[in-house]
Amino acid sequence: MKILILAAGLGKRMKSKYPKVVHNVLGKPMINWVIETAKNLGKVGVVLGYKYEEVKKVILNNVEIFIQNEQLGTGHAVMCAKDFIDENDDLLILYGDVPFITVETLEKLKNEHEIKNNDVTILTAILENPSGYGRIIREGNKIRIVEEKDANDEIKRIKEINTGIYIFKGEFIKKNLANLNNKNAQEEYYLTDIISFSNKVSTVLVEDILEVTGINDKFQLALLEKEMRRRINTKLMLEGVRIIDPENVYIDATVKIGKDSIIYPFTFIEGETVIGEDCIIGPMTRIKDSKIGNNVKIIRSEVEKATIEDNVSVGPFSRLREGTHLKENVKIGNFVETKKSIVGTNSKAQHLTYLGDATIGNNVNIGAGTITCNYDGKNKHPTFIDDNAFIGSNSSLVAPVKIGKNSIIGAGSVITNNVPEDTLALGRARQINKEGWVKTKREENKNADSKK
Amino acid sequence: MKILILAAGLGKRMKSKYPKVVHNVLGKPMINWVIETAKNLGKVGVVLGYKYEEVKKVILNNVEIFIQNEQLGTGHAVMCAKDFIDENDDLLILYGDVPFITVETLEKLKNEHEIKNNDVTILTAILENPSGYGRIIREGNKIRIVEEKDANDEIKRIKEINTGIYIFKGEFIKKNLANLNNKNAQEEYYLTDIISFSNKVSTVLVEDILEVTGINDKFQLALLEKEMRRRINTKLMLEGVRIIDPENVYIDATVKIGKDSIIYPFTFIEGETVIGEDCIIGPMTRIKDSKIGNNVKIIRSEVEKATIEDNVSVGPFSRLREGTHLKENVKIGNFVETKKSIVGTNSKAQHLTYLGDATIGNNVNIGAGTITCNYDGKNKHPTFIDDNAFIGSNSSLVAPVKIGKNSIIGAGSVITNNVPEDTLALGRARQINKEGWVKTKREENKNADSKK
Amino acid sequence: MKILILAAGLGKRMKSKYPKVVHNVLGKPMINWVIETAKNLGKVGVVLGYKYEEVKKVILNNVEIFIQNEQLGTGHAVMCAKDFIDENDDLLILYGDVPFITVETLEKLKNEHEIKNNDVTILTAILENPSGYGRIIREGNKIRIVEEKDANDEIKRIKEINTGIYIFKGEFIKKNLANLNNKNAQEEYYLTDIISFSNKVSTVLVEDILEVTGINDKFQLALLEKEMRRRINTKLMLEGVRIIDPENVYIDATVKIGKDSIIYPFTFIEGETVIGEDCIIGPMTRIKDSKIGNNVKIIRSEVEKATIEDNVSVGPFSRLREGTHLKENVKIGNFVETKKSIVGTNSKAQHLTYLGDATIGNNVNIGAGTITCNYDGKNKHPTFIDDNAFIGSNSSLVAPVKIGKNSIIGAGSVITNNVPEDTLALGRARQINKEGWVKTKREENKNADSKK
Repeated sequence: MKILILAAGLGKRMKSKYPKVVHNVLGKPMINWVIETAKNLGKVGVVLGYKYEEVKKVILNNVEIFIQNEQLGTGHAVMCAKDFIDENDDLLILYGDVPFITVETLEKLKNEHEIKNNDVTILTAILENPSGYGRIIREGNKIRIVEEKDANDEIKRIKEINTGIYIFKGEFIKKNLANLNNKNAQEEYYLTDIISFSNKVSTVLVEDILEVTGINDKFQLALLEKEMRRRINTKLMLEGVRIIDPENVYIDATVKIGKDSIIYPFTFIEGETVIGEDCIIGPMTRIKDSKIGNNVKIIRSEVEKATIEDNVSVGPFSRLREGTHLKENVKIGNFVETKKSIVGTNSKAQHLTYLGDATIGNNVNIGAGTITCNYDGKNKHPTFIDDNAFIGSNSSLVAPVKIGKNSIIGAGSVITNNVPEDTLALGRARQINKEGWVKTKREENKNADSKK
Repeated sequence: MKILILAAGLGKRMKSKYPKVVHNVLGKPMINWVIETAKNLGKVGVVLGYKYEEVKKVILNNVEIFIQNEQLGTGHAVMCAKDFIDENDDLLILYGDVPFITVETLEKLKNEHEIKNNDVTILTAILENPSGYGRIIREGNKIRIVEEKDANDEIKRIKEINTGIYIFKGEFIKKNLANLNNKNAQEEYYLTDIISFSNKVSTVLVEDILEVTGINDKFQLALLEKEMRRRINTKLMLEGVRIIDPENVYIDATVKIGKDSIIYPFTFIEGETVIGEDCIIGPMTRIKDSKIGNNVKIIRSEVEKATIEDNVSVGPFSRLREGTHLKENVKIGNFVETKKSIVGTNSKAQHLTYLGDATIGNNVNIGAGTITCNYDGKNKHPTFIDDNAFIGSNSSLVAPVKIGKNSIIGAGSVITNNVPEDTLALGRARQINKEGWVKTKREENKNADSKK
Repeated sequence: MKILILAAGLGKRMKSKYPKVVHNVLGKPMINWVIETAKNLGKVGVVLGYKYEEVKKVILNNVEIFIQNEQLGTGHAVMCAKDFIDENDDLLILYGDVPFITVETLEKLKNEHEIKNNDVTILTAILENPSGYGRIIREGNKIRIVEEKDANDEIKRIKEINTGIYIFKGEFIKKNLANLNNKNAQEEYYLTDIISFSNKVSTVLVEDILEVTGINDKFQLALLEKEMRRRINTKLMLEGVRIIDPENVYIDATVKIGKDSIIYPFTFIEGETVIGEDCIIGPMTRIKDSKIGNNVKIIRSEVEKATIEDNVSVGPFSRLREGTHLKENVKIGNFVETKKSIVGTNSKAQHLTYLGDATIGNNVNIGAGTITCNYDGKNKHPTFIDDNAFIGSNSSLVAPVKIGKNSIIGAGSVITNNVPEDTLALGRARQINKEGWVKTKREENKNADSKK
């Protein structure tokens, strides 16, 4: 089978300078949902039109692209991909703005098509309110699709509608495309006209309306995404993940979460993230493309491209950036940022710290306010801190620099040279108390004021 | 036309020590919504009563105020504003706790009033459940309003209700107010009694119930606000703004947002904020009274009274306070606060920094942990950092101070004097390594322990 | 009366490694809701089974525990607690996974039981969709409960269902338990069978379905919690607390909030928290087990086990940890953490600060970036800062240390020794400007490059 995805439309109601099908839905461009599904069924072609260069930028690979320069109807769109159609292959028509069609439904359509040896097989839906859609009219062997504007009252009462998704026999579509004309009010070529040419036609009813729901504006897009997220969350809950309030949690379909983990509200879990069991995630946490072990707490924090092992505690107000690797029992606390840094087992950085390009051993204590000065204005340099080191508060570690095993950095030190193991390193001035200075100043000011 | 707004009530069910009409609705006192609308139609008077001094504190200017010392009914309230009524002007009656009445609806009421040359024109509504409201009874030329408690079963079935909003002919109301009495169970003066005195009366039906919905308690207030916010968000989405989840975003009606900007959940955009196109705002961002250019990202941050130019990136965990101006391509990162500071094109302050009263040139790098020490306990002082300067991490810039062009501040320095251009400035102690100190201590401790 | 709570089930659909009844509902284990309610009515026994050791860990005290090793039906569960049943006491049966049953409803059941001198009194409910539940069949004096699977179409139409909550006369249950058999498809002992043995039986109808709703999976758990939270929030709003959006606020039933306080969205208020009047809490604030005065603002912050007096301002991005006590008019600002610290009246710590184990007087200003270095790797040490002291920005206060009254710490100082009152203390290196250094470097680099 070949699959042709029609995606040339402007999407005027999106009120956007980008073509409709590049808008993200649940984290990926709308059209790529359809392409991914289509790829399960055969060779995929796409008809692009409006600002097609923008679509090409985001579209998945291994897709044949056809350009429809003018938007002259669905029939015309298929004509533009004439070379894609093979007389010996069936042709499935999908749409770039109907993202949630499933392989299961399309397999049913395909089975019906093959069993009945149809010219064309139509996916239909029953809508409580069918107004605006083309209605399915059965007349003997034939099926006709009557658009809303051409429908009389009797036809308007029909609730079975055309979803626009069909499988055509290659030979049939090829022949009839040639016969299609645009002698109608809009002067467009309609694919539906071809349906009436066939005597070998039947339908398959889609069960879940969501699968055939198109997106026309940003309001519909929000509604559809919400429903999809509701389903993702319900599935996770029934699999044993505790989600405190599923209406306030945004989890991508690609995410895996172990049972007995609890997801608190106002949390986003995105991309290729895997979370273990018995974790507490959130509230107010964002995790993207990260691997999280068991029994990990991540509260009110940002985590991206990080690896976090078992029993780690992160947050609140932490930010773990790409290349962060926290080993078992690590604690990262408030106002701490890590980037391209490995933190060893049982080590802690709990307050107001920046760890960049740092490799930290086990049982290390990073005092409050510690900064790894990893950037000299041109290059980034590494910091190494060995096991059991104690970095006093408010220290500046000027990279490249190594702190040896068991060493202690005095609070407030600027460390520019390596510190051997078992060493106390200080880089701070001696304190001077100017006693009475404040009193003298106070009296001077008083005198000055009284002289004014 | 003159408009009299009745706002004397206590609002007992608000369970508040403040009068009902001062409670904020979508960011402004309830009564000011009505006054703003009324000002489009004519001269505005307000009848205040309960804790009227509190209302005067928040009320908009150019409004005539009348005091109703006792709450003896709507008729009595109008009597208290007797001097406001002019025989030659129409008088529109509105309510301080019915905030969302629109100019459009009131114009319709006015047109009806003028075309029919009415004594009184009543705004009515159709409610599915009219229970509790006064019903509209038409008898020949006359209209009677029957309150719930006086209604028989037939009348109770009437779904058209009195909204309490009327236009009276000045002459008519003036004359009939004098005839109004309080011979009823509550011993109050009811404005509705006057309606029945007229032969020249008709009605206008309000289309949107929300416009005539009053607020009686904080539960209703929450519901009404939610519905209003839903409408604001829907309008924005249909205009091309992407709102990921409109139920979790709070945008004031005063805000403007360009198309293709994306608003992530848990975000507040308030006051006189203008946001350009292609921005990413949120999640978890609050912006108030700020001007934001195109293609700006503001993630999990607070922004107030700031100006942000194109292509700037802010957050997560940033706080931009009043007087912040970020020029093009600026990057403000995590745990960074700015106040009354200008940051030049391409400059960066990405970690754990406080910039107060600072003027920063272009291409400046502010290292992690940098503090502008702008306060000496009495006064705030400015910091100037010229183009291409590099401020090493964990530096303290003691204001007033100037850092010259291209200059470099060594990490961990305390800078108290100006730094000329092309200068390397250091203000830190030399590092001392006491090698073996830790080992010696460890052994001393061991010995001490073993002697115990 | 004695109350027996059946809680032996595995809760398979929870998909959890923990027994169902230990899962938290609104902040406490499900079973403890039932036990707390039951304790108001008499002596409490609990039948545990699956992983009962896990349940014992969390269960409230003063409860008699019985173990059901095999799950052979509700009748069998009661048999396992045979010794708990007293011939002279009534026996109320409750369920560990039906957490929201109220004392009021159970008192009604008890009254009915006593007035009618029943053998058994059944709590029933009317469900719009009763499918799946045992139906109540009344036949003369008798009541029969027919399970869904045994029901014919007529019985299936009955909407009154058995909640499973009964009061038995002690003598009656004791005698009939012995007669109970497991001759049925499941080979289980059913408590419902005993009902049919009685001639003295009647029912009480529960008004609120929520009270008898059981929790079987994590989806139901989320729904039930949401409904309970909705009720808590509605009650607070009607009592005078302003909640901007009740669907985005999570308040425990144990929390008290004064009138005219405003709770912004994305806020959690938990445990034994008391909040005064006129406060602004949130957005994005979490408060647990804390005491908050009047007119306090806490914006986008974390607060746990803290005491906050009147007119204090906290946040955004603050974290107050256990043992924090903020006196009147204190201001805690962004990226500030406090722990076991007392901050005196009018004192301020507004930027990038860590205060641990600190006692701070009145009118103290803590500069941006100040760190109390309270930990030496082994022990925590205290910091004392007396009234009117001024701590310059980016200072490190190495505890134990005392800063005297009126004293000033120069910005960027490391303070290791006590500072007497009226003293200016400095602990920083003198600044050196290497003028032209940058230019020289630049030219060296140019030359080096040109030679390449």
